[in-house]
Amino acid sequence: MVSKELKFGVLGCGFWARYQIHAWRELDGVKLVALYNRTRSKAEEFAKEFNVSKIYDTPEDLISDPDIDFVDIITDAVTHAEYVHLCAKHKKPVICQKPMALSLDEGKGMVQACKDAGIPFMVHENWRWQTPIRKVKEIMDSGVIGKPFRCNLYWNTSYPVFENQPYLARIEQLIIADLGIHILDTARFFFGEAQTIFCQTSTVNKNIKGEDSATIMMRMTDVTCIVQISFSSIVENDKFPETFAFIEGEKGSIELCPDYWIRVTTKGETKSMRVPPKRYSWANPDYLVVQSSIVPTNAHWLESFRAGKEPETSGADNLKTLQLVYLAYESAKTNNAINVREL
Amino acid sequence: MVSKELKFGVLGCGFWARYQIHAWRELDGVKLVALYNRTRSKAEEFAKEFNVSKIYDTPEDLISDPDIDFVDIITDAVTHAEYVHLCAKHKKPVICQKPMALSLDEGKGMVQACKDAGIPFMVHENWRWQTPIRKVKEIMDSGVIGKPFRCNLYWNTSYPVFENQPYLARIEQLIIADLGIHILDTARFFFGEAQTIFCQTSTVNKNIKGEDSATIMMRMTDVTCIVQISFSSIVENDKFPETFAFIEGEKGSIELCPDYWIRVTTKGETKSMRVPPKRYSWANPDYLVVQSSIVPTNAHWLESFRAGKEPETSGADNLKTLQLVYLAYESAKTNNAINVREL
Repeated sequence: MVSKELKFGVLGCGFWARYQIHAWRELDGVKLVALYNRTRSKAEEFAKEFNVSKIYDTPEDLISDPDIDFVDIITDAVTHAEYVHLCAKHKKPVICQKPMALSLDEGKGMVQACKDAGIPFMVHENWRWQTPIRKVKEIMDSGVIGKPFRCNLYWNTSYPVFENQPYLARIEQLIIADLGIHILDTARFFFGEAQTIFCQTSTVNKNIKGEDSATIMMRMTDVTCIVQISFSSIVENDKFPETFAFIEGEKGSIELCPDYWIRVTTKGETKSMRVPPKRYSWANPDYLVVQSSIVPTNAHWLESFRAGKEPETSGADNLKTLQLVYLAYESAKTNNAINVREL
Repeated sequence: MVSKELKFGVLGCGFWARYQIHAWRELDGVKLVALYNRTRSKAEEFAKEFNVSKIYDTPEDLISDPDIDFVDIITDAVTHAEYVHLCAKHKKPVICQKPMALSLDEGKGMVQACKDAGIPFMVHENWRWQTPIRKVKEIMDSGVIGKPFRCNLYWNTSYPVFENQPYLARIEQLIIADLGIHILDTARFFFGEAQTIFCQTSTVNKNIKGEDSATIMMRMTDVTCIVQISFSSIVENDKFPETFAFIEGEKGSIELCPDYWIRVTTKGETKSMRVPPKRYSWANPDYLVVQSSIVPTNAHWLESFRAGKEPETSGADNLKTLQLVYLAYESAKTNNAINVREL
């Protein structure tokens, strides 16, 4: 059986939309057919670049187009709720960028609306689809290091994020909401749900409003998971935006090192392998490991969609990641460890 | 002025006493003149080996000997309180191995007794005198990395500690009380007092009673300090008993790496240097960095004693380290972050 070609529309033609669309074009059986952007001229630019015939003047016009099978929302977080609710209203399957919502309650409302409408809803959380992250999970699942008991996830940089994204300097909840969300999702991908979360934050760079460093400690069943993130770390191997990891288990350890090297140590032996992301000509080399992971993320959507299965990073699943973000802030504010409540 | 030669006696002639005595012999102006051990034959062995003329049959006989200027207690923790109180009774300056006491209250009583007696009391906490640890502090104090905001201290091994010290397998409070105490003291040496402590523990090795892995997160003024210790870590660079560190500051970072390498990274530049401990022929190569640090620890005692100054690791100071040990256990048990109370 040959699958029918899926047609989709994109809301938002900004910086990330370009990579997202390029990633779709790497996959068979899917085609971008409609665009919307608040400033129409940008949509027109994209239409020309990607040979798209339909440009809509309102999100609802695009969403209600019977010709499209799903919608990919690549706008800022402020508009996510409105657009997802519109998709629910028109029973249009939808993918939405992270963070899905500006609060946990807003996120819950979006998930419920899609559930009530009977449409699949995926949050575009691509970190767990990164080649090295996926490989680390595969090695862990193979049992070679036995049952894990501790994990460190590191993402520390002084890459000039504020030069490229000046609005970040004015955000009140900065690194956990913007970046930590990915690492918290990766931790969930590795170990399942957290039972307790404790967090401390700092503002090292005095020219910004929010916190630019956070240290999070979670209990995830039998695993203590420490997440260390920072925009103000002057480190020898600054490999922005790579995530490093060190996972200790009963029988060995796995280290995810700079430049996509993975080292697996068991009694008396260390094996190393390099698992770089696939290079795409359209990807910004500075963001390679992140941007190349959009391809498997989109492929997962297509596969789930065609099989009628809930995607790994469904809205319902992603609410748990969002909850960790807000509990981390709550913990930092109250200086208490917080038990994760049932959603 | 030539200082008078100081004479001292040792209580306890076990495994560590030998290194301790060797370390004293590296220093000028100090002489071991009296020994006591529960099993007299071991004291006799030591007397022969180190040419000591007086062996006492009770701790009090040694402590009350008017010929000795101070006492070095190198017995197990269970006897520390009794012997320190005897020293207070006889107004005899005293050094005592870590952990000074079996509970915080016991420790407080010992400190008070020495204070009331007007005698100096030092806890033999030698970790902060390790060559690389001292160097890291010196670099931090130089201001090269600016104000620190996060520190990681690592001590993870699968060195067969239970083969050498089989009693460790039966201890209920294991790695924090036995090993973590050193790292917590090192953290205090680096950053001063903790305001909050949070801890999670695991028992990875199912053949032992206590916890063999602990992860501790402290707030020490503006610094988040994470302590990771384990007797069950199968790691590539198992350099037992070296401590590794990674300290992030506003202007750079310091990394204490395997084999006593220190790497200092500032914008655009990393400088590395190797600061190995001094090699002593009497030291067990497996414990080199720890055993060689006994020499500067003892030198510090002599210097403080002669100057009439309180040593860095006085009993009063060391109570704060001991408090962190017990608060870490309390935190792990209650799964709560704990505010450090005024002692």
